[in-house]
Amino acid sequence: MSFDKEAIHIYDTTLRDGAQQEGLNLSVHDKLTIARHLDDLGVGFIEGGWPGANPKDTEFFALAKKELKLKNATFVAFGATRRPNVKAADDVLLGALRDSGAPAVTLVAKSYDRHVDLALKTTLDENLAMIRDSVKHLRDEGQRVFLDAEHFFDGYRANRAYALEVIRVAMEAGADVAALCDTNGGMLPDEIADVVHDVLGATSARLGIHCHNDTGCAVANSMAAVAAGATHIQGTLNGYGERTGNADLVTIIANLELKKKKEVLPQNALRESFRISHAVAEVTNISPSPRQPYTGVSAFAHKAGLHASAIKVDPSLYQHEDPASVGNDMRMLVSDMAGRASIELKSMELGVDLGGDRELIGRVVDRVKEMESRGFTFEAADASFELLLREEATGKRPSFFTIDHWLTTTERDEKNSIITKAEVTVTAQGKEITCSGAGNGPVNAFDNALRDGLNQLYPELASLELTDYKVRILEGRLGTGAVTRVLVETSDGKGEWNTVGVHENVIAASAMALEDALTFGLLRQGRKPE
Amino acid sequence: MSFDKEAIHIYDTTLRDGAQQEGLNLSVHDKLTIARHLDDLGVGFIEGGWPGANPKDTEFFALAKKELKLKNATFVAFGATRRPNVKAADDVLLGALRDSGAPAVTLVAKSYDRHVDLALKTTLDENLAMIRDSVKHLRDEGQRVFLDAEHFFDGYRANRAYALEVIRVAMEAGADVAALCDTNGGMLPDEIADVVHDVLGATSARLGIHCHNDTGCAVANSMAAVAAGATHIQGTLNGYGERTGNADLVTIIANLELKKKKEVLPQNALRESFRISHAVAEVTNISPSPRQPYTGVSAFAHKAGLHASAIKVDPSLYQHEDPASVGNDMRMLVSDMAGRASIELKSMELGVDLGGDRELIGRVVDRVKEMESRGFTFEAADASFELLLREEATGKRPSFFTIDHWLTTTERDEKNSIITKAEVTVTAQGKEITCSGAGNGPVNAFDNALRDGLNQLYPELASLELTDYKVRILEGRLGTGAVTRVLVETSDGKGEWNTVGVHENVIAASAMALEDALTFGLLRQGRKPE
Repeated sequence: MSFDKEAIHIYDTTLRDGAQQEGLNLSVHDKLTIARHLDDLGVGFIEGGWPGANPKDTEFFALAKKELKLKNATFVAFGATRRPNVKAADDVLLGALRDSGAPAVTLVAKSYDRHVDLALKTTLDENLAMIRDSVKHLRDEGQRVFLDAEHFFDGYRANRAYALEVIRVAMEAGADVAALCDTNGGMLPDEIADVVHDVLGATSARLGIHCHNDTGCAVANSMAAVAAGATHIQGTLNGYGERTGNADLVTIIANLELKKKKEVLPQNALRESFRISHAVAEVTNISPSPRQPYTGVSAFAHKAGLHASAIKVDPSLYQHEDPASVGNDMRMLVSDMAGRASIELKSMELGVDLGGDRELIGRVVDRVKEMESRGFTFEAADASFELLLREEATGKRPSFFTIDHWLTTTERDEKNSIITKAEVTVTAQGKEITCSGAGNGPVNAFDNALRDGLNQLYPELASLELTDYKVRILEGRLGTGAVTRVLVETSDGKGEWNTVGVHENVIAASAMALEDALTFGLLRQGRKPE
Repeated sequence: MSFDKEAIHIYDTTLRDGAQQEGLNLSVHDKLTIARHLDDLGVGFIEGGWPGANPKDTEFFALAKKELKLKNATFVAFGATRRPNVKAADDVLLGALRDSGAPAVTLVAKSYDRHVDLALKTTLDENLAMIRDSVKHLRDEGQRVFLDAEHFFDGYRANRAYALEVIRVAMEAGADVAALCDTNGGMLPDEIADVVHDVLGATSARLGIHCHNDTGCAVANSMAAVAAGATHIQGTLNGYGERTGNADLVTIIANLELKKKKEVLPQNALRESFRISHAVAEVTNISPSPRQPYTGVSAFAHKAGLHASAIKVDPSLYQHEDPASVGNDMRMLVSDMAGRASIELKSMELGVDLGGDRELIGRVVDRVKEMESRGFTFEAADASFELLLREEATGKRPSFFTIDHWLTTTERDEKNSIITKAEVTVTAQGKEITCSGAGNGPVNAFDNALRDGLNQLYPELASLELTDYKVRILEGRLGTGAVTRVLVETSDGKGEWNTVGVHENVIAASAMALEDALTFGLLRQGRKPE
């Protein structure tokens, strides 16, 4: 049997509920881009927003109708049941859903008696009428309707009979699915399973599940609902959402496909999930969590030296799945716990062939240990490690310039204004260049001066940007004084790399990390070192 | 019945397994600080590391024996069973555990036949003998022993009989608990529950659970194990750990206490979890996730709108728990971080009596919110917060000196030597003093110059020492540029205090934090401000 998107609905609400996340602000263009990524991932349903409720979503639906050619997904509009005491056909917001052009609509409805009373301020019977009329109206107009039963689990605890009645009324009026929403996110898997099981028996409705991560169980709650019989799963990319976020749809999908052997995406689509998760993070401009299950950059990263030797024998000894199944990669982290095996694996990953040269590998291991004992760390500084590798492999560290002298000054004057300047003398391609720069700190000024000086010889440095900068004071070991460790992240718009510098002096440590950063940036662009 | 830490073991492994996280690198001092926070949180057991396996952990255990006075927790050393084919008493690493001074030891043992063969490279029988001998040896020497059954769930799938035999052998030799480890993190709650249930029936051992988050289910897996009868739970603060991290201990604790009504921490300790989670994040220098369950700054944040009016009627309509139960706050706005209650509690803790003055408390709350929106944080800067409190309570910020002007220069000459100098002009007790200093970096030189200048007037400054210094770059909000946050820890030999400075320029931010540090140091010594 081949994939059938109707068997288990993979329903994405990144564009609506995900957008409720603090700090997340999507333009209409962003939403179109994300919708295309979602369609590439192969989700069955894309909830686009609430047309009529805010102008941005109205515009998005109008544009989507024209521009969005979906290969796989069904486009869904979200909205509420009609207001109390009006006719469905006269309800303006319901009209906007009807006119949105979306083939399907998800209607949110109250299923918790207390919310009907206190938030909706109407009677329990009128709420049922609102659900019945609204579902029927949209069905009559030719749209497919899903019901989001808001606060369902809390409502079920408080008044089971009423919560069940909400589901029955919606199904009788023609809804396809009733999605049970843990709106406040306080549930645990055992209760979710019990409730889904009971509702299924009591209503025979097709059930869906919509979870939030307030107990850290959004994924497990969704899995528990599916095990209990739900066949429609709502979630968001990267678990975006209000408070602690919604259920992370990619993790659920990977668990269903890889652990439970259920086909819920088109064939091979899961392998796109790493790429798509990161591409969407670029759109939202929210740094992806390195620890995200399956798609985090650390999800298949190994640190301990003990593990590394066994991983060489068989990666499955220390990995729950093949990282390629979600488009991710195994990564070895170089740390003071590292031995020969992890250095070898790491070098392969970086594309530097050590050719099994035991003496060379031994030299690299010794050098890493010696440098780590002085405060270096390479697990967060791949680029500095690669420079070290190339130096040991070729006998010469890749170099495009030599810094001869530098001077930074920072001054606060009596008027409380702060001025920072740097002067750098550098030799490159046989020329000595002296240059200066200003900045919002000595390191920034140094960086500006250095790049300004090298700009004529290496114009590609203009595209580089310092994207992160971290400083740590390390206590002295074995009687030496404290040292400063600086980690720098640099980007050229296509990718990022990390470098490290260690010195007693923070500016000198920064200069070291910046020198590595620019050197590696030039290597990346294909420049041959001097 | 009151709290009994033996009823359900809350076992923290932040300092050992948590430290395996990519990018996490803890100094000995960091580990001591985190251990104190863990003890404040009230966990029953703190796993400190692997003494004997690396010099840093050996040093930590030696220092912990002298310096760590734990109120509640038992200190635990981690290590492996003896090597194949040696006597337990002759095994060097086992000897280091025995001599660590820790009252309890957790021994990791292979329970998956394939790992015995491929990673340990010994026979199944010898592995059992290694477990038996090692547990017995440490028990005979008077230590309590826990067993970490590595790869237990994978091992159980492959060879149930052998996995069970590992548990039986350990218990017969005198282990207290066998913790079943989902080392590769691939399990889901249903399988965890089934296996724990079966092992309990087959061995009658006291069982523990150790989960990783590779399927996004670490918390739910731990909860499932407890429901199936496990009474010892391993996890880490903020879910730190290799790959996708370990189970987040605070989320598990909150779920057990608030949802399952099990008392697993001393009374009121859970209310400290927000503070401790964030204080530890400052030590690790890893930005805390705003979406972290219970303790994330977004965990109880609501976007204004529909929810707002209902929340005014009754917050429980839109919150699964009272945020105060974990020391967190409900927030309606992005910058709305501090609540009145926490400001009042914090002030009491610092010994500043706000006398229930609502207007004064409101002023402090507003000021904290405004400053946090600019990048300040007071979680890890008590001393700066106390200066702010005193300023608002008395109308004048405590002050012993005014810095009029400063200048720092750092230079690297052609001979590769680095010289840093600072010049500071300061007014104190009506005198203008200009002074200079050198140092191993501009901040150190500034500190030296300032203290040298003030030395005649305040000789007690000579006893102060800068003991930690951290820098973080914060991305700009609302279109402003990036700012730098500096946290400084200062000691006078009797205690430490922490101060914060925020500025575009790292030297200016440092100057701000240092000014607070010296001011607070003089207050501590009983000096009356000008």
